[in-house]
Parts: sequence; structure tokens; C-alpha cells
Amino acid sequence: MKNLVTSLIRKNNSKIVLIVLDGLGGLPSEEGKTELEIAKTPNLDNLAYRSALGLHIPVDWGITPGSGPGHLALFGYDPLQYQIGRGVLETLGLGIEIGERDIAVRGNYATVESKEGKLLIKDRRAGRIPTEENRRISAKLQENIRRIEDVEVIVAPGLEHRVAVVFRFPQALPVGSDEINDTDPQKTDTEPLTPKGRNPQAERVARIVRKFLRRAEEILKEEKKANYLLLRGFSQKPKIPCMEELFGLKSLCIAFYPMYRGIASLVGMKVLKPAGNSVKETIYTLHEVWEDYDFFFLHIKKTDSYGEDGNPKGKAGVIEEFDKTLPKILDLKPDVLAITGDHSTPSVLKGHSWHPVPLLINSPYVLGRTSRRFTERECLKGEIGLIPTKKIMNLLLAHALRLKKFGA
Amino acid sequence: MKNLVTSLIRKNNSKIVLIVLDGLGGLPSEEGKTELEIAKTPNLDNLAYRSALGLHIPVDWGITPGSGPGHLALFGYDPLQYQIGRGVLETLGLGIEIGERDIAVRGNYATVESKEGKLLIKDRRAGRIPTEENRRISAKLQENIRRIEDVEVIVAPGLEHRVAVVFRFPQALPVGSDEINDTDPQKTDTEPLTPKGRNPQAERVARIVRKFLRRAEEILKEEKKANYLLLRGFSQKPKIPCMEELFGLKSLCIAFYPMYRGIASLVGMKVLKPAGNSVKETIYTLHEVWEDYDFFFLHIKKTDSYGEDGNPKGKAGVIEEFDKTLPKILDLKPDVLAITGDHSTPSVLKGHSWHPVPLLINSPYVLGRTSRRFTERECLKGEIGLIPTKKIMNLLLAHALRLKKFGA
Repeated sequence: MKNLVTSLIRKNNSKIVLIVLDGLGGLPSEEGKTELEIAKTPNLDNLAYRSALGLHIPVDWGITPGSGPGHLALFGYDPLQYQIGRGVLETLGLGIEIGERDIAVRGNYATVESKEGKLLIKDRRAGRIPTEENRRISAKLQENIRRIEDVEVIVAPGLEHRVAVVFRFPQALPVGSDEINDTDPQKTDTEPLTPKGRNPQAERVARIVRKFLRRAEEILKEEKKANYLLLRGFSQKPKIPCMEELFGLKSLCIAFYPMYRGIASLVGMKVLKPAGNSVKETIYTLHEVWEDYDFFFLHIKKTDSYGEDGNPKGKAGVIEEFDKTLPKILDLKPDVLAITGDHSTPSVLKGHSWHPVPLLINSPYVLGRTSRRFTERECLKGEIGLIPTKKIMNLLLAHALRLKKFGA
Repeated sequence: MKNLVTSLIRKNNSKIVLIVLDGLGGLPSEEGKTELEIAKTPNLDNLAYRSALGLHIPVDWGITPGSGPGHLALFGYDPLQYQIGRGVLETLGLGIEIGERDIAVRGNYATVESKEGKLLIKDRRAGRIPTEENRRISAKLQENIRRIEDVEVIVAPGLEHRVAVVFRFPQALPVGSDEINDTDPQKTDTEPLTPKGRNPQAERVARIVRKFLRRAEEILKEEKKANYLLLRGFSQKPKIPCMEELFGLKSLCIAFYPMYRGIASLVGMKVLKPAGNSVKETIYTLHEVWEDYDFFFLHIKKTDSYGEDGNPKGKAGVIEEFDKTLPKILDLKPDVLAITGDHSTPSVLKGHSWHPVPLLINSPYVLGRTSRRFTERECLKGEIGLIPTKKIMNLLLAHALRLKKFGA
């Protein structure tokens, strides 16, 4: 059967804005207050009083989501049904576009030693070489290996020892994400593994990868530390129906960091990079493209970065910066405005967490007046309750009056 | 596997009353208050303080339910699993009983013109002819067409241009709801479509329908406006297990409007029409039959009608009328009393909506004292939380002590 929501879609001229403050939800730090409670947010407080509030759970109770599942769920996709492979996510994060014909994999430069005719891994991260070193070495690899047979090879340096490799085939080869084994054995003093395919299709890919690795070994052997390359997470762009098809929405992503633009492009959004990393620059970009789309996803990264650093005041500062810019969004009079995160990143945990994420939805069709602020504790009192993240899109479409009645 | 609840049923002499104030949930109108907040309801307030409160979601977050799914869910059925076809619902709404052997369809009288040997639709609604005209024309059709071969035909006039037609076959012919195409192309200046069956069974029905339409065309051709009949939504009574079978309940529906008696009869309830449309007459009927059933579903329509008219004070007035009559229900000392709606109909939206519906359950086994009134905002504080509508029946059975323990 066709997806229920898709079968009820009707189009209109409404505009929906979804603001994602990455890692928004938090926990109390020293003063017993969460980052949202520390922040002084007069504009958000005012909006919260007039909005529907609640919290959402990206994957399941107790499950800490990565950026991929967190965002896919926000876009209305079941994050357990649609999974983005590690290789693909890493590659998207480096700003490389991934197409249907690509097999992407993430890599580590590593240090190996020859012993009794065997190659043994001594350091899986090549002593965390500086990013500059990585760039030099990756450029050398790329110059020397442009193709393996009829397969284009793209080597994209990341931070420190991290790298992504894309194998671009002449035509699409459907290969499951566990059909080629990692070459990284995840331990030292042992040999790197040889990549093999679990079926003829995957083996066709694995054969190219083996050839690539032999060439890479040759090219890297003069390097002191990064004299080897370990690969893991062979993956392909997942087959995901696009947002236009599912929800009838012309969608735009405004995000400074490539990974978020990459995830958005996987579901068919157009993507735009703001001039700079600040909240202001992200939100000002919205004004320039307001007429051209139905749905706008704006991504603000720094809430998560400060959370990961264990810096509650820094995170609160970004929330305050957002609060000051909020009137610029309200000026546009979106029909539906949602403000939330893709997951929680409590400063006390210095990382992503499983905690439900605060959610605010503003439209003319809310009950409102349940809560005085936009904080975790105030969201608990709200009319939305605790919902699965993937259902938020239903609510945004409903508030935009873009869904017909079900049944007579 | 057998349904969990069904496997746990134990019978006793308890009595359960479910009052449905159609379209009960609302949104703030001018004064920032919802219809339930505007209404003065001393009796409901008192009951709310002693009851379990919450809100329920009939189909899914953001999905606006029709009356069919809303009521089926209240009766404990999954509204996505059991769907009532448009033709069947329309026919039930006109007070025609639908049996296993019937194919029902809704129709529009339409205006067609002959042009170069083609019949073109000029007005899909025959200029919205008066209901009186419709009755005259439908009676003429019915007099002239009693049977097509061995199939009985029932023509039931609705309002303005609307009509329902039932084809009663000598034996049941299972036909899926999309197995015969509509004849209404949903646009003008084009020819009506010919009904065809997607499989031999459906084609057997379609052949009878085509014969019927040729006869109808002949009979209607002298009419000025309503000179044609367009059909859509061929459907059959869905196969639904009855409430006695699922829940061991002898059930009665008391409803003035035929559609609600019709939906109740689909799940095997006995049905009773009160003397009049008022809240009082509906509730007084309960006293007359109190000894004969276990489960009583009372339907009060006017909350929804005022909501659809965009009249919050009118809707609040019906709620006040209900409040005044509430003691008459309490006099009967039901073991479990539930008061709710089948969906929300906020006056500001002038139609059904996706908003969660307030729910009150009273029994000796509630926590209570969470809330001072029976309103959307006070229900948010209640002990039931936000639940899927189809789970309410579990709660009613539990509070009636009609469910055994699961597992040892």
C-alpha cells in the first residue's frame, strides 16, 4: 500500500521552516540548569508561549542517534528503514557528491611494518598525522591513481589520519553494505585483511579495491608514518524516495557544513551554503531564497560543537545568538515554523545522547499557552507530548494544511 | 495469532458507557479559549477532578480522520486495517442498511450535453438541484428500475445532487474497493467513464452497473439539469469481527443520525434512534434500555456541526447542554463512563482536524485529582497521557474488570 501521508497530500502555497540547532537537547550542568535554561531567550520564550511544544525521540527510547538517523527522521523517514552507510556519510561530510554509480568507503592512514614476509599493523592511525600531512599524501595518491581499469577513483582527505575513497563505476552496481569486508582488523600486530565480495557483484567491486590497495601500498611505502591505508564501511547511496515524491514539497537545505547538505541531498533537497558559519549568515540566506521553495531546512552546527566540548555556557551562547536572530525568521511569516535538534548533546556527556529533543511548532492552529519557555522541562508540559521524530513531518504538513482528511 | 485483548476477556455484569460528543476537541478562538474552555461546565469539572484524563489520536500524528476511522478506532478497531468505503458510508448515512451481498456507490446527478455523437459533462453537480428535485428524480429512477437481471437496485436520494445506489446481488461477491473504476472523471467537457471490473468478479458487477446506467440515462434524458448520473466509490461492507466476538460485549448504539448507527451496526452493535436530536433525548433513551446491554455508545452530533460552522459559542452551548444532562447519566451509576470525541473539529478550522481529542474515563480505579476541568489543556496534565484511540477500548474493559491478567 502507498504511504498513508503520501496518499493524503494536497499542495498549497504554504511555507514550512524547520530550524535544526544540532544537538539541541541538554542536561543540567553545575548550576542544575540545562543549556536551554541557562540561555537568556526573550524571543524564544515569547514564541514558546504561543506554540505547540513537546519532545521527540529520533530512533527509539535509549538509543543515541548519529547525525544521519537524526536528520533522516526529522525529514519524515524511518531511520531504521533507511540507513546511510558510514563510507557515504564520511564522504558527504568531506563535500564529495555521491551518485548512484559510487561505492564509498572511509579510510585511515596507518603504519605497517614488514616482519618475516608479513605486513603487520603497528599503528591504526599513523600516529594521528597532521591534517596537512594527510593532504599532501592524499594528493600524491590521487595524482598517481586516477582510475583502476574503467573505475574512477576519488581520494578525499579528512582530518588527521582520516580519508574517504570513492570508486565511481561506469554503471550502478547494487552492493549491500556488509557485502565487502573491512580491511581494518581493528587491532595491531596483525595483518590487514584482504577485501572480498560476498557475491559476484560485490566481488567485482572488491577486485578493483584490491588492485587499488596494491597501487596505494606501492605509492605510500616511502612514507615514514602513513605507509598504509586501511578501509572500512564500503557503502552506497541508499535508495530513498525524495521529499517531492513523498510530501509534494520543493525543499531547500541551508547548511554551512557539507555533511548536512549531503544528507539533505540524499532525500532530494536542493542545497545552499551560507556565506559563513554564523547563525546570522544562515538565517539571512533564507531571505534570499524565500520565494523559491515550500520547505526550508536550516542547520546550525555550533550548539552541538560546544556540547561535544563539554561547554554548557558556549552552547547557551549559541542559543542566545539564535534567539537574537529569531525575529528575522518571524519577519518572513512562515505558515509553519519548527525549531528543534536532530538529537541531544548534553555538555555533561560531551557527546550525542539518547535524551528526547525539545520541539517547538508554531502555526495559527496550535493550542499554546502550556509553557513559558522553550526548555526541556517546559516542553514536557506541551501539547505535542513525546513523539517519534519521524512523525514530526506529519505535523508540519498538517499545520500547513497540506493533508486531506483520511476516510469519510 | 488471536488478538491479545480478546484472549484475556472475562465477562461480568459491569456496564460501560461511551459518550461521543462529535468533533469535541477544539482550538482557541478569539478570546484565546477553546470551546471546552468557554463552556461553563460545573458537573464535568467535578467529574474531571475525580477521573482519569488524557487525549487520544485517532489515526496517526497529523492525520485528520473522517467519521468512519474516528468511530472505528473508538470501538477498538485499527482504522488503517478496517476501512469503510465511501459508497458504504454514504449509504449508511442515508439510513440504508448494508448487507454482505451489497455493492454500494455514491452518485451525483449531473448535466450532460450531446455533441457530435459524444456525451460531454457540463456540470458534475447538475447545478446543485434542490433536495426536493432530487427526491422526485430518485423516485422516478427507483420506480422504473427495481432490478437489473437478478440484482435488486436501491436508489436513495441525499442532499442536493447527491444520491446513493445499492446493488443487492443474490449472493456475496467479494470485490475490492478499487476494483471497479469511478464513472465520474472529476472534470467537465469530457465524457463520463465506463465502469469496468479489474477482474472477473468485479467485471460481473460492472456489467450490471453498465446496464443500470444505460437505463438511467434513458429515464433521465427528459430532465433539464439532472439528465445524467455519475458514480464513484464502489464499495462493500468491510469484513469486521463484531464487538461481541472481540470483547464479549452486548453493545447498543443510541444515535439520531443514520451514519453513526450505520457505523455501529458494522461492528455488530444493536442500534436505537432517540425520539429527537437533543442531548436530553439521547441520554434519556439510555434509561429505557439500561438493563439490556453491557456497552452503550451514545452519539451527540451538534458539537461537530457548530464546529464545522465556525461557531465556537454554539459548540460551547452544546457542551453546556451536555453538562446539564450529565447527572442523568451518573444516576445510572455506570461502572465505567468515558466521555470524548471521535476527532477534533476546531471552530477556527471549520472542519475536522488532526488535533488530539480530550478523553475522560471515570471508574473507581482511577488516580484522579490531576486536573480541575475537562479541557484540552487540563487533559494534557492527566494520567492517561496521549494515546492511540484504538487503545481506549482496552482501558474501558480494564476499568470494567473485564480483562484477565496476561501471563502468570
